[in-house]
Amino acid sequence: MSHPHPELGPPPPLPADGLRIVPLGGLGEIGRNMAVFEFGGRLLVIDCGVLFPEPDQPGVDLILPDFDYIRGRLDDIEALVLTHAHEDHIGAVPYLLRERRDIPIVGSRLTLGLVDVKLSEHRLQAVKVEVAENERRRFGPFDCEFIAVNHSIPDALAVAIRTPAGLVLHTGDFKMDQLPLDGRLTDLGAFARLGAEGVDLLMSDSTNAEVPGFVTSEREIAPVIDEIFRTAEKRIIVACFASHVHRVQQIMDAAQRHGRKVALIGRSMVRNMGVARDLGYLKVPPGLLVDSREVEELPPESVVLICTGSQGEPMAALSRMANRDHPIRIAAGDTVLLASSLVPGNESAVNKVINGLSRWGARVVHRGNARVHVSGHAASGELLYVLNLTKPSNFMPIHGEWRHLRAHAKLASLTGVPEENIVIAEDGVVVDLVDGRARIVGAVPCGYVFVDGTSVGDITDVALKDRRILGDEGFISIVVVVDSTTGKLAGGPEITARGSGIEPEAFDAVIPQIEQALHEAAASGVTDPTQLRRTVRRTVGRWVHETYRRRPMIIPVVIEV
Amino acid sequence: MSHPHPELGPPPPLPADGLRIVPLGGLGEIGRNMAVFEFGGRLLVIDCGVLFPEPDQPGVDLILPDFDYIRGRLDDIEALVLTHAHEDHIGAVPYLLRERRDIPIVGSRLTLGLVDVKLSEHRLQAVKVEVAENERRRFGPFDCEFIAVNHSIPDALAVAIRTPAGLVLHTGDFKMDQLPLDGRLTDLGAFARLGAEGVDLLMSDSTNAEVPGFVTSEREIAPVIDEIFRTAEKRIIVACFASHVHRVQQIMDAAQRHGRKVALIGRSMVRNMGVARDLGYLKVPPGLLVDSREVEELPPESVVLICTGSQGEPMAALSRMANRDHPIRIAAGDTVLLASSLVPGNESAVNKVINGLSRWGARVVHRGNARVHVSGHAASGELLYVLNLTKPSNFMPIHGEWRHLRAHAKLASLTGVPEENIVIAEDGVVVDLVDGRARIVGAVPCGYVFVDGTSVGDITDVALKDRRILGDEGFISIVVVVDSTTGKLAGGPEITARGSGIEPEAFDAVIPQIEQALHEAAASGVTDPTQLRRTVRRTVGRWVHETYRRRPMIIPVVIEV
Repeated sequence: MSHPHPELGPPPPLPADGLRIVPLGGLGEIGRNMAVFEFGGRLLVIDCGVLFPEPDQPGVDLILPDFDYIRGRLDDIEALVLTHAHEDHIGAVPYLLRERRDIPIVGSRLTLGLVDVKLSEHRLQAVKVEVAENERRRFGPFDCEFIAVNHSIPDALAVAIRTPAGLVLHTGDFKMDQLPLDGRLTDLGAFARLGAEGVDLLMSDSTNAEVPGFVTSEREIAPVIDEIFRTAEKRIIVACFASHVHRVQQIMDAAQRHGRKVALIGRSMVRNMGVARDLGYLKVPPGLLVDSREVEELPPESVVLICTGSQGEPMAALSRMANRDHPIRIAAGDTVLLASSLVPGNESAVNKVINGLSRWGARVVHRGNARVHVSGHAASGELLYVLNLTKPSNFMPIHGEWRHLRAHAKLASLTGVPEENIVIAEDGVVVDLVDGRARIVGAVPCGYVFVDGTSVGDITDVALKDRRILGDEGFISIVVVVDSTTGKLAGGPEITARGSGIEPEAFDAVIPQIEQALHEAAASGVTDPTQLRRTVRRTVGRWVHETYRRRPMIIPVVIEV
Repeated sequence: MSHPHPELGPPPPLPADGLRIVPLGGLGEIGRNMAVFEFGGRLLVIDCGVLFPEPDQPGVDLILPDFDYIRGRLDDIEALVLTHAHEDHIGAVPYLLRERRDIPIVGSRLTLGLVDVKLSEHRLQAVKVEVAENERRRFGPFDCEFIAVNHSIPDALAVAIRTPAGLVLHTGDFKMDQLPLDGRLTDLGAFARLGAEGVDLLMSDSTNAEVPGFVTSEREIAPVIDEIFRTAEKRIIVACFASHVHRVQQIMDAAQRHGRKVALIGRSMVRNMGVARDLGYLKVPPGLLVDSREVEELPPESVVLICTGSQGEPMAALSRMANRDHPIRIAAGDTVLLASSLVPGNESAVNKVINGLSRWGARVVHRGNARVHVSGHAASGELLYVLNLTKPSNFMPIHGEWRHLRAHAKLASLTGVPEENIVIAEDGVVVDLVDGRARIVGAVPCGYVFVDGTSVGDITDVALKDRRILGDEGFISIVVVVDSTTGKLAGGPEITARGSGIEPEAFDAVIPQIEQALHEAAASGVTDPTQLRRTVRRTVGRWVHETYRRRPMIIPVVIEV
């Protein structure tokens, strides 16, 4: 992935009247969304999110966009515009600010509120520029107009960027719930107005481009939740995303109707809902909330817990309840509601949680057996509306894996965007808008940047490959001490193995072979440690493969004394 | 999982007129199905399958049922009855036969044919007893009646087992396609007849107990396949299970109608379809099949490839095509059809394949966007029919995870089986049928038995835990050579690390700390290698955690000279 279109070379210089767009994340994957716009030597960045690792990226905490492309030009950045406050759009902001602290951060009130608490955890402070829908603000050469869009977090924005090169509409993430809980609709009127003015390039959310039809309204979950509350015998435990203010609002409203108290569990849930409440996005009926410790004192039938862990995260409260490793002891009569999507990659973990809860007798309600979740992303029916309203001259699908980008490109083609004006790019691919035409002109290196513990970027593909081998096969380390002048064995072989599935005693069989090989090496005058290591590796590798048909990592260590 | 109901002790002796049932796999998981029946000191085994590993069982090839419970009593086994030839029902047969070669293997013609080729690959030969539906055969005290059931492989059987303790009906895996391609229906008449006679215990397939309604007929895939063939521009590549004879038949029929030649790709596909053809279960039109090498010579629009790899297996042809690592170079105009289920745990792998194929421009058709697959397992609507027809006195859901077993138990309860006569067991739980009543009476140890390379059972939970740590964090090995009398450092510290994400130079910072710690130990007279290892581990562990917030495995090696 470091250079996605291998046939693409570095881009040519950008013409003076051209706009350059370089996605540094979010194209070819779902997550770490980030796009860099360049005009007249100045930069505008849209979003700066994180990607969560796949099973073949073991031990990685987060994956960041690759800042390499802008690292030498941080002072050229006029602003970082955040379309909304989901992790895959804001999660990497602290890492970017570490490189330049005073990049102005532009976003809606809730977005900035949630970014703020995140930054303060990293001991960072933002230079904030609050904007709202229908507002127009200039950042250097970038004349930005903000447009309300509906999504699974309140206060999301699309942004139209006008430069002398043309008008680009970036939708951010959106859907088109026509009966949203907060009454704030995706502003199709604005999309139509921009369409009439002339959209030179539409960049639109592809996440659900493969899904036929339309996303159901968030409102339609309410009767399902009510029915669950009506039939719940004991505790109700709801797991959902810590940013889904409207989902939490629906649960709180149901709790209020059914005479139950609510406790919030999980650091990010407590933190985000505090911000949402303070800023007026979450309405909490007086007396509804109780402390999570009080909950254990209350009768089970008068309690609702709202927690994180809907993705099966092993350390979250929900997983620990499923494993009976939590003060809340799940029992027959309890109802657990997973009111969230199932993020690809988490299927096994969530299945484990559902089985664990089922085993202890809980009723588990999830999107597989009840309509307790609706997606936050426009399905293909909605995407067609946006394409038809904005009538873009050029189209570039964003925010999706290849399957989603291709599906969205096909929708654009069906609405009449000429094939040659549809640009399917992936991370690092450079797209120039020049003379009203968007074209791929080259690519810049754009790798995965892994966060592991406190370090950023130390974990390389080599380290991950080593981890995969170690994780699958374990290792065998063989230490020998040799006399540096004669090459003769002076200590060892000392064998240590982990994860190899070979019992310590079994190595007794290979030790004479190692001794013999070293003896022969010494006899023929070999004293070079590199050659001795190779001898040891070959001897042990052959033995393991012949005896066990396995290929653990073999680590020979030769110490000269 | 080694002792699933921790409160259960070893079972009491089995009363003389009682039947004992011990599931050694398939309850609490989907796979490695195996159940042991005991009456009058004799044993009957139903199925002997494998389970495929989860992501948290790295490097494991297969998981077997735990034969420990029967290992001392192999000579008591009257027969091994195989309900059908899926891997999760026959995959462990070679491993059981290694323990006793002449266990009679009972099954239908196709089942035995497919077992036979598997055994010959293990250089084993079976003592075979071919049976067919409507046949009744006695194996020691077990009077077995075989009943036709419809499933995603032809020639599947349910088995009714009569002993003086009562009549047990074991459905095997089944569904109830009312228009099956081969006209062989699940024999509801036999189920009704047994119900009239009195079923003392029903053991029924729970895989789809959570799924509402009924499974669509296999026949309904045909028009979808036809439409795909009609609109395919170039090559058609179909991936499905290597045992799904009827699915392959449908593809071959479509190829014939559309004037395309067919090549089979993948060892198990070629092998199994050869058996199915030889035994008359697969009808291959003359001249349809071509060799996989000939395919590359033919024009793309006259070719169909049928291959394995529908689960994203990295070494299978399909994954290699997605990665452009295969002679077949996927290009725009090619159509790839994933005509199979998505086995839980394989979601990420399959998604990678779909994205890879999409990237190269292929149209990818799968169960997510077209009806190209129907399940092989009865959904809840069908399960209710079986419960109502057989009217069991006792019910024991089998073949499923906890969520499925619980859902199936609920269905049984709805049809009138008294709650107290519904037995939810998991692997190793002992169920006795005595005086017409099934009860859990204890549990026997029943762990996972891992196959890795040529070895069976060498991989323990400890090794897997080590692999998980190594896979997530890597390791750091520190070798020191000490003088055995003074404890003073005589060589090293030599540090080797893999997968830790720490650059080799970075260890320069900790080496003086190790030297200092060892110096202090020597000064206070410590020469014991165990204590010295602990000193080294503590020093390095603290440094890594403080510097990087990571916890790689730390392996101190102390060599005395």
